[in-house]
Amino acid sequence: MNSTQRRGFLKAIGGLTASLAALPTLMSAQGSANAPSRASGAKYMGDFAAPKLEKVKVAIIGVGARGSGHAKQLATIDGVDFVGICDLREKQVQNAEKNVLAANKGHKPKLYGKDENDWQRMLAETKPDAVFIATPWDHHAPMCIAAMKAGAHAFTEVPMAYTLKDLWDIIDTSEATGRHCMMMENVNYGREELIYLNMVRQGVLGELLHGEAAYIHELRGQMDNGDSTGSWRTFQYAKRNGNLYPTHGLGPVAQYMNLGRGDDNFGRLVSFSSPAKGRALYAQKSTKLSNPEFKNLKFEGGDINTSIIKTTLGRTIMVQWDETSPRPYSRHNLIQGTKGTIAGFPNRMAIEGVTKTYHEWAENEAWEEIAAKYEHPYFKRMGELGKKMGGHGGMDFLMLYRIIECLQKGEALDQNVYEGAFWSAVGPLSEKSVAEDGSSQAFPDFTRGNWKTTKPLGVIA
Amino acid sequence: MNSTQRRGFLKAIGGLTASLAALPTLMSAQGSANAPSRASGAKYMGDFAAPKLEKVKVAIIGVGARGSGHAKQLATIDGVDFVGICDLREKQVQNAEKNVLAANKGHKPKLYGKDENDWQRMLAETKPDAVFIATPWDHHAPMCIAAMKAGAHAFTEVPMAYTLKDLWDIIDTSEATGRHCMMMENVNYGREELIYLNMVRQGVLGELLHGEAAYIHELRGQMDNGDSTGSWRTFQYAKRNGNLYPTHGLGPVAQYMNLGRGDDNFGRLVSFSSPAKGRALYAQKSTKLSNPEFKNLKFEGGDINTSIIKTTLGRTIMVQWDETSPRPYSRHNLIQGTKGTIAGFPNRMAIEGVTKTYHEWAENEAWEEIAAKYEHPYFKRMGELGKKMGGHGGMDFLMLYRIIECLQKGEALDQNVYEGAFWSAVGPLSEKSVAEDGSSQAFPDFTRGNWKTTKPLGVIA
Repeated sequence: MNSTQRRGFLKAIGGLTASLAALPTLMSAQGSANAPSRASGAKYMGDFAAPKLEKVKVAIIGVGARGSGHAKQLATIDGVDFVGICDLREKQVQNAEKNVLAANKGHKPKLYGKDENDWQRMLAETKPDAVFIATPWDHHAPMCIAAMKAGAHAFTEVPMAYTLKDLWDIIDTSEATGRHCMMMENVNYGREELIYLNMVRQGVLGELLHGEAAYIHELRGQMDNGDSTGSWRTFQYAKRNGNLYPTHGLGPVAQYMNLGRGDDNFGRLVSFSSPAKGRALYAQKSTKLSNPEFKNLKFEGGDINTSIIKTTLGRTIMVQWDETSPRPYSRHNLIQGTKGTIAGFPNRMAIEGVTKTYHEWAENEAWEEIAAKYEHPYFKRMGELGKKMGGHGGMDFLMLYRIIECLQKGEALDQNVYEGAFWSAVGPLSEKSVAEDGSSQAFPDFTRGNWKTTKPLGVIA
Repeated sequence: MNSTQRRGFLKAIGGLTASLAALPTLMSAQGSANAPSRASGAKYMGDFAAPKLEKVKVAIIGVGARGSGHAKQLATIDGVDFVGICDLREKQVQNAEKNVLAANKGHKPKLYGKDENDWQRMLAETKPDAVFIATPWDHHAPMCIAAMKAGAHAFTEVPMAYTLKDLWDIIDTSEATGRHCMMMENVNYGREELIYLNMVRQGVLGELLHGEAAYIHELRGQMDNGDSTGSWRTFQYAKRNGNLYPTHGLGPVAQYMNLGRGDDNFGRLVSFSSPAKGRALYAQKSTKLSNPEFKNLKFEGGDINTSIIKTTLGRTIMVQWDETSPRPYSRHNLIQGTKGTIAGFPNRMAIEGVTKTYHEWAENEAWEEIAAKYEHPYFKRMGELGKKMGGHGGMDFLMLYRIIECLQKGEALDQNVYEGAFWSAVGPLSEKSVAEDGSSQAFPDFTRGNWKTTKPLGVIA
C-alpha cells in the first residue's frame, strides 16, 4: 500500500480518528481470520478424542525441579506403563527411576540422557503413547512436534512455546498428525478454580464481564540455585520484556469465559512493563550466584508486566506477572459478572442474592459455606486422593490423573491444543506490545474460525 | 438549566465528543512537544504562588450532594469570608446559607440561582478571591475559566474537565490570568495516602516501579435519586465509554511518583472497557427511576474499565473504574518499588527489612505499628480536627483547610493546574483508546516541557 492508497484507506474507514501509528493494528483487525490457511489433509482438533488406550505407555523428558514430580505421580496411576525417562543429568534420571520403580506396578522404564539428542532415541525405541515434557522453554516446541510426529500425544509444561511461529508449528503438527498436544496448566485443577468454574457455569454471576489473573512470585533466588531453573530462565528474564509466564492465572479465567470454545474468543491485547531493576540489583548483591555471567547481564525484562486482553464479546481480562519484586506470593484471580464477583488470594465473593450483601466480601467461613455448595464433581471424586498425592496442593495429580483417564476412555482432553496456544500467546504478544509502546495486538485465531462451533468444556463428572 | 435544556445541551456535546474531540489529540500526538505553543504573555504556573491574602473571600457554585459539605466546612475555617452561594435549587441555597451562618464568623453570603447565568452575576457582584465549583461535569470548565477571568482562583470538583480541549482552555486561562485552578482531589489528603507519600519520599520502597489505582463504587441506585447526581451522571454513563472518574485513585499514586514535578511525567495510556450491561439491567428492574428516560437509554459505557499508564521513566500504573457492578467499595491503591509494596483496601505492606517478612502482608496491628512511624506531619497537625469535621473521614476538611492556608500564606498549592489536567485527561484518553480497540494514546504535555524543572510536592509541615 503506498501513501496515497493509505490516505484513501484511512479516509474510507473514517480516518479522522485513526492515527498513523494505529495503522498496523487497524489493518490486522480487518484481516478475515488473522490466520494462515490450513494445510490440506489437516484436521481441526478442537473437540478431538483419540482412540481409547487400555494402557498408556508414558515417557518423560526432563525430570528436574518440575518433571520429577510428574514422573513420581504418573507412575502411581492405574493404566500407566512407564517406558522411558530422559534427562541430561544422570542423578536426576536415577532419582526419577527410583520413584517410578517404587510405585511398584511393573514399571521398568528405559533410561536416556547421554547426549542432547537422546530424547529422540527414546521416542524411536520406546514408542510411547504419551510424552511428558518438562524441559527449559526453548525445547517445548521441538519436543512436542517430534513427539507427535513419532505418533505420541504430547503434554508440555507451561508455556507451550513463546513465539507465535512455534505455536503455529505445534498446531499444524497436531492437525496433520491427529495427535493431542496439551499444555499442562495445573491451576485449572485447583479446588477454588474448579468451584468458580462450576459457579460460573451455573450462572451464579450472571453475564460475565471481566476477569483478572496474576502470577506474582518472588523468584530472584533462582539465580543462586545451581543447575536448576535459574540456570536457563535467568537468560529469558534478561533478554525478553513482556509477560513471560501468563498461563497460571489466565488458564482458569479463560475457561470460565469459554474462550475459544463456542461462546467467545481472544481478541486483542495491550501491555506495558515497568522498568527492569530488581534482577540486576539482586545479582550485584548476591554472593552465591550459580553463574558469574548473571552479574553482567543486561536485564531487559521489566520487573512487573501488566496487560489487558479484550475478548471477541468485549469482555476484559487484566493479566499481571512479576517474579522479581519482594511481594507476597499471589495468583490473584478474579471473575466478575453482572450479579457479582468471586476472587482468590484471598478467597472472597460478593454476589447479589447469594452472599449476605454484595457491599462486603464473604471470606473465610462465609466463603467456605457457599463454596462448599458448588464443590466441583471432579474434585468431589478425586480431591481427597489429590491432596494425599500432593504436587501444588493436589492440582498436579488431579491434572495428570485426568489426562490418563481421558486417554483411556478415548475422550476429548479438558484443554485442547488451541487453548494452550492462546494462553501462551500472551507471551509474544505482550513482548510486541511493550516494544511498540503499548500498541494493540490482535490475537492470531489459532482455530481458524472453528472456535465458533467448538464445544464448551463440559462438567467433568 | 431545566431538565429539557440540560438534555439538549448534553445531547449536543455528546455528538461532538464522539467525532471532533478526538481530533486535537491526534494532531497534538504528532507534534514535537505534544502540546500547542504557549501564548505570548502567558506564564507557566507549576510552582506558582499567589500574593498573600489576609482574608479569603469565598464563593461557591453548586451546593448539592457535594458542594453543601464544602460550604459548611469552608465557613468554619479562620480567614474565610463567605461572600456568595449559588445553586439553581432554592432549597439547597437556603440550606447552605443556614450552615454558613451557623459557623458564626460574621458570614453573610449573598444568594444566587434565579437562572442558569446567575453564577456569573455572583462573580461580578461579590468579587470573590476563590470560587469553589461543585456542579455537573459539563460546567466545570466554563465556570473555572470565567472565575479566573473574573480575577478569582478556581477550585473545582473532580474531574477538572472531560475533554482535552477544555483542559487546555483551563490551563491557557490560568497561565494568561495568573490565577490558580486546582482540581480538588480530596483522596490525596487521606491518612493512609499521606502516610504512603511520606514512606515513598523517605525511600522506604526503593526505586518506584508500579502503581495501581481504582475507584470501584456501586452507584446504580443514583438513577433513583430525584434531581441529584444521577440526574446528569446517568447521561454521562450512557454516552461515554472509558474511565470517566479516574482521579480519586490516580491522584495519590501520581504524587507518590512525582509525575509532572521534576522526576517523571505521564507518557502513554491504553484502555479497554467491558461490555455495558449493569445500568440497562438496573433501569429495566427499578420501579422508582427518577427519570423515565433512563429506561430507554442506550448505555455505551462499559461496566468496568481497565487502563494502564506508562510514565516517561517507564513506570506503570493500572487504573480501574466501575460504578455499576455489584462489588464491595474499593479505592484499591498500590505502590510498588524495588524494596517492597504498600497498598490499601485493605491496608497492607510488605517491605524488605521493614516488615517481618515480605512473603506475607503486614495487616491490621502489624500495619498500624509501622504506619504510625510514618504518620504525615500535616496529618499529625490537622488529622484530629479533620476527623471531627468529617467529610469522607476528614479528607475533605484537610484539603479545604490546606487550600485556605496556602492562599493566606501565599504559598504554592499542593496540586497545581497541570496535575488536575493530567489526572483528568485519563477520561478522554481512555475513551479514545477504547473506541480504537486499545490504541496507545500519548498524554498531551500540559506543562509544555516545564515539568522537568517543577519542584516536587514538598512535605507539608
